[in-house]
This record gives sequence, C-alpha cells and structure tokens, in this order.
Amino acid sequence: MTASLLACGIDPERSILFQQSQVSEHTELGWILGCFTSMPRLRHLPQWKMKSGKKNEGSVGLFTYPVLQSADILLYKSTHVPVGEDQVQHLELAQDTARIFNYKYGDFFPVPKPLLSETRKIKSLRDPTAKMSKSDPQKIASINITDTPDDIILKFRKAMTDFTSEVTFDPDGRPGVSNMVAIHAAVSGVTVDEVVRQSEGLDTAQYKQVVADAVIQTFSPIREEVERLRADPGYLKEVLSQGAEKAKELAIPVYQDVQRLIGFC
Amino acid sequence: MTASLLACGIDPERSILFQQSQVSEHTELGWILGCFTSMPRLRHLPQWKMKSGKKNEGSVGLFTYPVLQSADILLYKSTHVPVGEDQVQHLELAQDTARIFNYKYGDFFPVPKPLLSETRKIKSLRDPTAKMSKSDPQKIASINITDTPDDIILKFRKAMTDFTSEVTFDPDGRPGVSNMVAIHAAVSGVTVDEVVRQSEGLDTAQYKQVVADAVIQTFSPIREEVERLRADPGYLKEVLSQGAEKAKELAIPVYQDVQRLIGFC
Repeated sequence: MTASLLACGIDPERSILFQQSQVSEHTELGWILGCFTSMPRLRHLPQWKMKSGKKNEGSVGLFTYPVLQSADILLYKSTHVPVGEDQVQHLELAQDTARIFNYKYGDFFPVPKPLLSETRKIKSLRDPTAKMSKSDPQKIASINITDTPDDIILKFRKAMTDFTSEVTFDPDGRPGVSNMVAIHAAVSGVTVDEVVRQSEGLDTAQYKQVVADAVIQTFSPIREEVERLRADPGYLKEVLSQGAEKAKELAIPVYQDVQRLIGFC
Repeated sequence: MTASLLACGIDPERSILFQQSQVSEHTELGWILGCFTSMPRLRHLPQWKMKSGKKNEGSVGLFTYPVLQSADILLYKSTHVPVGEDQVQHLELAQDTARIFNYKYGDFFPVPKPLLSETRKIKSLRDPTAKMSKSDPQKIASINITDTPDDIILKFRKAMTDFTSEVTFDPDGRPGVSNMVAIHAAVSGVTVDEVVRQSEGLDTAQYKQVVADAVIQTFSPIREEVERLRADPGYLKEVLSQGAEKAKELAIPVYQDVQRLIGFC
C-alpha cells in the first residue's frame, strides 16, 4: 500500500504524515512562544490585515495562528521550510521567535530558512491579481488536485485572459495569460521561456486547452491514487496514527528541553 | 504528611493540586476556545488595558491569557469558580465562551458561576485605592502568607492611613483604615461591624498592631507548614505528580468530547 502514497509524491518511510491536533506539543509550545511575541508583531502581518478586515475583528484563533505556525516549525528544530510567497512573512515571525528564544536561553532553535519554489504564487483564474485560494467562494477560480478532467477543462475555458490573442509572459501587462504560462511551466517542469516558445502560433483559446491538458496529465494519476486511498480509510488511519507516534517521538524531547529551559519543570 | 497540607487548608483527598503545564489539555482546549473568541472581546478586558499600557503593546501570551483561563475552567466542566472581584470579567468571558460553544454544538459546558468571598478585594497597604498585588514593585505594599511576624508588623506599621485617629469603616472616605478593617475581619472570620465594635477606643497606630497580630495569628501556622513542606521536595513532587495524573483523568474525556464535537477526530 505504501506504493499508493508514493504515487502522490509522498514516501511514508521518509515523510511523517500526521494530524497536528494529535500532537499536543504544538499548542503547548505555541502557548509558550506567544509569551515571547509582541502584539504589534502579529497586528502588522499582512495576512491578518487582509483576513480580519478593516476593523481587525477576526477571531483570536486567526490572530494567533502565525504563532502556532512558528511552533509547528520550531517544535522539530526545522532548518528549512517549503513556503509559498504569501507565507514568507509568517516564516520570518518563526525566525524572529527562534532568535528571541535563543537570545534569552542560549542557542537552542535553528533559525529556519525558507525554501521557495520557482512558481512562487499561482493566481486566481477569475482574478489574476489575487492569489489562487482553496477558500475562494468562486469555485471556478481555483483548480483542485482532485478535480476531474472535465472540471479542469471547464475552469481553464472560463479563465480570465485579455483581448490579445498570442501567448506571452508579462505578469504586469497580461496577468491572466501569464498566470496560465506559470501554471503550464510548473506542471510540465520546464521553464517559462520554453513554454512560451512551444506555444508560438496558438491563440489564447487554444492555449487554454493545452494548459488544461498539461494540468490533467499531471493531476490525473494523483487524483486516481487519492480516490483509491479514500476507499481504504483503515490504511489512512493507520498511516496517521503511526505518523502521530513518530512525530511525538521527535517533538517530546524538544518540548521537554524547552520546558526545562523556561523553568516549567 | 497529608496532615501538613491539611494545615494549609488543602486536603489532597478532596482537592487536586497540579501544575497546569503538566496537563496539555489546557493549552489544547485554549487553542480551540480562541477560535470562538473575538479580538474585541479580549481587547476590552480591563486587566489587559491596565497591564498592556496605553499602546496595547503587551505580549500575545498576556493578551490571550483570559482564553487559557476559560480553558482552565471549562476543561473540568466547572460549575462554580472562586474568584476575586478583579477576575469577575474573566469569568464572564468563560461564561460567554461556554454559551457560544453550547449554541454551536449543543448543551455541553455548564455556564460557570462566580463564588465571591465576603472580602472581595484587599487593597494595597501603600495605596488603598489600588488592589494588593503580588507583582507590586513596592514590597511593603502587600502581605505574603510566608512573611515573618516581623515583616508583617513592619508592613502594617508603614501602612497608609489618614489623620483621623479612631477606627471606622468607610471605604470611600477612609480607604486606608477601612482596608485594614476588611483585612482584620477576613483573617478573624468575624464581620466588619464586629471588628469596628471591638476596636473602639484604639487609635490607628494601636489598631495597626492589632491587625498585624491577627494576621500573624492566622498566617503563622500556614507559614510554618509551608517551611516544613519546602524542606520535603520529594513529597511535594509526589503530590503534584499524583495531582497531574488525577487532573488528566478528568480532563481527557472532556477534551475528547470537544475534539469529537468540533470534528478533530
């Protein structure tokens, strides 16, 4: 069965899959790190400003979420964290928190570095100035890995472009088409320049079909494996339960050291 | 050895003594409750306003502490909570949080009621308009249970009163003397009226000595037991470790129900 997760790019022998809520050390360390975080530090994070609206009236959970993220990272003494561009400032919070802790208690946490992929930010298909987001209420604005080929074709057909026919990469001048070029490059594993060269002579309507096909080719085997795995909840539970155990094995000694350093035991 | 804690008014057979940091369910439930708490609800709490200063620049830990207090209360499905007057608004937060949770997930948490003692607020000996506080930088402004008789006599001798000689109870007009009457009544277990009657004919200097003596009489056996207990750290560790175990026995099923209700498992 391991082969199934491998097809999704995950090797349970190397990656530990677990539910954060099953490893209590995340909220425990989160609480402690919150005591080293100033209110203005969180108030100025752009994600909070954006999501809480003008009156800053979101929930305490939303406000303090970046602190829990810092705990998620530092609890494993992580050295590198793969993030999207929108999460860079949250990683910077984790870095600052590690430094503040280290300054007070000695060199304990590595200061984690971001691992940014080439494709830093995928934009909404309906509004290429906004990021593509799972939580977008417009369902056709984002592609899910589990979308059927028909869904994917439809979403690209309705994707916002402009009145120029040819395929070029110019994120500022032509954000819609450039977003598709970026997606195309990301799923094909080739450069943006290569994608543009290959698409010479196509108009945007034809190009939408090409990108949709490339996305389908990349996502279909993953979607099929997801469906197969979903049909076997016993196996998934087992992976998560073993994962939680392994995660706890790593988390507990770090958290115990933290407790000792700050005087909790 | 149980008798020793009994002398401090604690019966380990009835009361469970434990360190909050040893029962991870406190921060775990605290995290969840934070997701049901709005930012303005916390920002308007007077303790936060007072402690964070005019610019609201305290730590995230200080800001969210009332949410952790709500978790401390609700985790045991508490029905009554002994609080000082300054904590009534934090208990109201716990009540609101219980109601919000119950409204969403069905009648789960009892809405906890405050248990206010007769002596609601003991004031600072140096500034009878402020509350007596452990964290007051002026050490002679507050009495500690572990103070020696000499400390207690000195602190009362230096306590702020006024230029009227006799002993009366008039918190608004004579806050200093009235605070001493309140302390006297509290440690002697008699009413304020009774204390005032007994003190007829004494001037405030004489009365300070009487109150100091009453406090010493109440606190000395406790202080002596504290000293005895401190000399036996093995016993204290054992009490705390057994307490944490008992607390976890109560906390785990409640937290598991919460996890199930909100969909964490």
